Amino acid sequence: MTDAHTLIVRFRAPDRPGILASITPLLAAAGCDVREAQIYGDPDSLAFFVRIVVASPIDEAALASSLASWLDAWADRWSIVDADRPLRTLIAVSRFGHCLVDLIHKQEIGSLPIAIVGVLSNHPDMAPLCNYHGIAYTHAPMDEGKAAQEDRFRALIEETNPDLVVLARYMQVLSNPFAQDLAGRCINIHHSFLPSFKGAKPYHQAHGRGVKLIGATAHYVTADLDEGPIIEQDVRRITHATTADQAVGIGREIEASVLSRAVKWHAEHRVFINGQKTVVLL
Amino acid sequence: MTDAHTLIVRFRAPDRPGILASITPLLAAAGCDVREAQIYGDPDSLAFFVRIVVASPIDEAALASSLASWLDAWADRWSIVDADRPLRTLIAVSRFGHCLVDLIHKQEIGSLPIAIVGVLSNHPDMAPLCNYHGIAYTHAPMDEGKAAQEDRFRALIEETNPDLVVLARYMQVLSNPFAQDLAGRCINIHHSFLPSFKGAKPYHQAHGRGVKLIGATAHYVTADLDEGPIIEQDVRRITHATTADQAVGIGREIEASVLSRAVKWHAEHRVFINGQKTVVLL
Amino acid sequence: MTDAHTLIVRFRAPDRPGILASITPLLAAAGCDVREAQIYGDPDSLAFFVRIVVASPIDEAALASSLASWLDAWADRWSIVDADRPLRTLIAVSRFGHCLVDLIHKQEIGSLPIAIVGVLSNHPDMAPLCNYHGIAYTHAPMDEGKAAQEDRFRALIEETNPDLVVLARYMQVLSNPFAQDLAGRCINIHHSFLPSFKGAKPYHQAHGRGVKLIGATAHYVTADLDEGPIIEQDVRRITHATTADQAVGIGREIEASVLSRAVKWHAEHRVFINGQKTVVLL
Amino acid sequence: MTDAHTLIVRFRAPDRPGILASITPLLAAAGCDVREAQIYGDPDSLAFFVRIVVASPIDEAALASSLASWLDAWADRWSIVDADRPLRTLIAVSRFGHCLVDLIHKQEIGSLPIAIVGVLSNHPDMAPLCNYHGIAYTHAPMDEGKAAQEDRFRALIEETNPDLVVLARYMQVLSNPFAQDLAGRCINIHHSFLPSFKGAKPYHQAHGRGVKLIGATAHYVTADLDEGPIIEQDVRRITHATTADQAVGIGREIEASVLSRAVKWHAEHRVFINGQKTVVLL
Repeated sequence: MTDAHTLIVRFRAPDRPGILASITPLLAAAGCDVREAQIYGDPDSLAFFVRIVVASPIDEAALASSLASWLDAWADRWSIVDADRPLRTLIAVSRFGHCLVDLIHKQEIGSLPIAIVGVLSNHPDMAPLCNYHGIAYTHAPMDEGKAAQEDRFRALIEETNPDLVVLARYMQVLSNPFAQDLAGRCINIHHSFLPSFKGAKPYHQAHGRGVKLIGATAHYVTADLDEGPIIEQDVRRITHATTADQAVGIGREIEASVLSRAVKWHAEHRVFINGQKTVVLL
Repeated sequence: MTDAHTLIVRFRAPDRPGILASITPLLAAAGCDVREAQIYGDPDSLAFFVRIVVASPIDEAALASSLASWLDAWADRWSIVDADRPLRTLIAVSRFGHCLVDLIHKQEIGSLPIAIVGVLSNHPDMAPLCNYHGIAYTHAPMDEGKAAQEDRFRALIEETNPDLVVLARYMQVLSNPFAQDLAGRCINIHHSFLPSFKGAKPYHQAHGRGVKLIGATAHYVTADLDEGPIIEQDVRRITHATTADQAVGIGREIEASVLSRAVKWHAEHRVFINGQKTVVLL
Repeated sequence: MTDAHTLIVRFRAPDRPGILASITPLLAAAGCDVREAQIYGDPDSLAFFVRIVVASPIDEAALASSLASWLDAWADRWSIVDADRPLRTLIAVSRFGHCLVDLIHKQEIGSLPIAIVGVLSNHPDMAPLCNYHGIAYTHAPMDEGKAAQEDRFRALIEETNPDLVVLARYMQVLSNPFAQDLAGRCINIHHSFLPSFKGAKPYHQAHGRGVKLIGATAHYVTADLDEGPIIEQDVRRITHATTADQAVGIGREIEASVLSRAVKWHAEHRVFINGQKTVVLL
Repeated sequence: MTDAHTLIVRFRAPDRPGILASITPLLAAAGCDVREAQIYGDPDSLAFFVRIVVASPIDEAALASSLASWLDAWADRWSIVDADRPLRTLIAVSRFGHCLVDLIHKQEIGSLPIAIVGVLSNHPDMAPLCNYHGIAYTHAPMDEGKAAQEDRFRALIEETNPDLVVLARYMQVLSNPFAQDLAGRCINIHHSFLPSFKGAKPYHQAHGRGVKLIGATAHYVTADLDEGPIIEQDVRRITHATTADQAVGIGREIEASVLSRAVKWHAEHRVFINGQKTVVLL
């Protein structure tokens, strides 16, 4: 088994009888041994979401060839990936570094299966940190206008060819076409427990309303700001005595934690988009 | 000390120097020994919120006489209450009993310092439960129209003279004048993590949006529906696989828990209204 | 599909290739449509845990006949049950009613798939509550000695033939032989976050140690007291100001919540014993 | 008020009547305006813990002179500190950097009121990180024996004169005399929810026991390993499918979060030792 590949077969299929009964013998015939399987049939969308991890004697391309005709016939969307290949990830930030620091540290110690292919920012602040960690830093300021800046962002994506773009407190709204191009491969962290407190200064909104818990939300970016499918959320308790500034501080930890979990699950190929929602197969 | 009274002195005062320096000697002069003190100065409203628990040789009326001139001069609002007097509480429900069951049980085993003076409902469903527990039950159906029904509710309040009215999943919106009459002494449980999902069927709204946590909110009733000052909130994790009906079931436990905490803190005289927010001195 | 049965096929099998590939075609051949499937392969015990929910045209006995030879050959343990059959449950309590009140309420409103076949107690306190709810109550006091009392407990089990016995704050230690007889079908709630604070008065132990969170643990009963496989745990925050008595009060809610989740998951046939641990397929 | 000092007066006093009534007029006489006050009277130790934040026209030394005779007479222990003076903090680590990265980042962005006076480690791994951040790094390897290494640690303490020593995953046990010298000014993070899983490899112990939540504990160091007064704890949910290695990864985030809260509260002069426990005045 030492020469085996660990592959992830994932697909979304219209729900009908026989899915598992027909795919599992094909996997067995290809010499694959199922190590994990997560299946979810959504009663609303009538879609079946499947993630199967196999020990395979053949690589991802070979297994894809072997299963392609079945997958094309049964599934809406499918992919077969090597679990040991880190996801190429481009990170965008503005001036706040807490999420970036956290992602870099977790990547470096082996707890996030990503390869950081670059960092883009509309500010220069994070350049020294990235230099220290040997990560290419692109400073794309807003001076030349939003359209020009976004062109630089798009060019960087073309150049670095990431699987995933992470907006790690990137305080610029993407244009609709750009957001649509990135559909399903761009994760944003919003610093509130959505759908509460969309838009700007959510901790100040939360403080003004007097809520007793504040939160953060990691979601896929869509053209509708703060409306994309939610991947993960979490909250922390505050009190009447917590100032808006203190809430910002508490929120930083929730943001970093929630974003890193969303990136990890995406990079482990656990997250499926299901209309306006996600299915996360843990 | 066996004949001592445990009294709670609470007040809200405009913030200015010397509040504690002048009240604490007065308490000492009255023979009172401070057992607990919670103080919060709000930097936004510039109000000082104080709750002092004392062991007192004299009763609440006597201590009130003793402190009245100072309190009238320094405080906007004040009260002195006996900590051992349970709060007279009227509960309103509709058809769902989970909050009512919880409040009654906690009252009976001594973990909620309230006396339940009656239960009102627009449905007959909870009558047997109340009869079993020896609690007077008023069935005020909606048949005769909303105004007539609310008149019966108001009449019951006049008759039972409660300190607190608890809407424990009472699925009727109070009229504005009624809500205003009850300002500061009526607690509602809303089955969402406000300000998300105001209005009807919040768990179904949450399910539709695909959030990863659902919650409940206990707040003071105001004329603005679901906008009153929040006393307590809590959340529980759900997943993509949680149906709306399952969310309702999970939510019941959060509702009962959050409502009972809010009622307990109110009954312990820990909650102050501070504009649209609360101060909860724990 | 209106005449279909919802059946749960669950088994534990030594891990080897081909399990899913051979069972799923058999299910399909029996006319069963997979609605949910949870699979877990444990890397330590090298066991495969499978729970498959199917819409079946035949009933549980017929499906069991159809699959028996495969299941006998591949699985260590297996069962096929009708998801709509509530689990026959006998509850034992002492004097504290909070878990019992919670289980009865959740059963009555349809949120726990159990049928309560009786309540046994070494005290008379809960008799009126059970009478009100129409549940047979057996008062088995300790006066006649522990052995005689346990004989009455055993006789009641023989008589009522429960699938599950729940110790809902039953403050008696079962004898080793009795605990062994009930292995895998008896759930206890321990009022601490095990393995901390085993034995008596755990909230007082926790208070003495100055922990900042208290908890409760639902576990299968084994001959080793407080050492059985853990099904569910939860915690709540306390502070230095929380007295031991207040901790007891806070703990009651955690106990009821944790126990009801464990009972629900067991009654939904989601829990497998895996040596000293459990696998809970949610 | 722009030239005012924000001072913190904190003391522990044997509980007797008149404490607040006599200290608050003294503060007023010194021109101090109370901004916050937290008071806790412990019913077990019969001690009164007080933290008062004042806006003062005079500095900490002058206020101390002014209050010294009262404080000496009434209090067991007292101090008056300037809230704007960051706490001099020495950090010790071994090979794992997650807590150190977090503490440095929070210090740099102004969310931890500490000044890091140096980092000591028995390994060289964290030297580049400290160099990048401009923090003096002392590599004190174990090669020369435990006693010699501890002498270097003690020498560094003498040289840097820290108010606080933080063991941020420092995997060496301090000798008893050293632990005693540091009593009340040395915080350790233990990677379990104490008192469960003391000693080595707690996540592996937790995995072996099959617990459903893992945690971390920040506590003051005492001669009794893992028995010191607990400042803060937190937990995160795991499942049967969480491997010991994954638990280690999840645990890192809890450790960093819990440790940084404990350090923050200590640095804000909110934590008092109360026998084997702490009082944390938030």
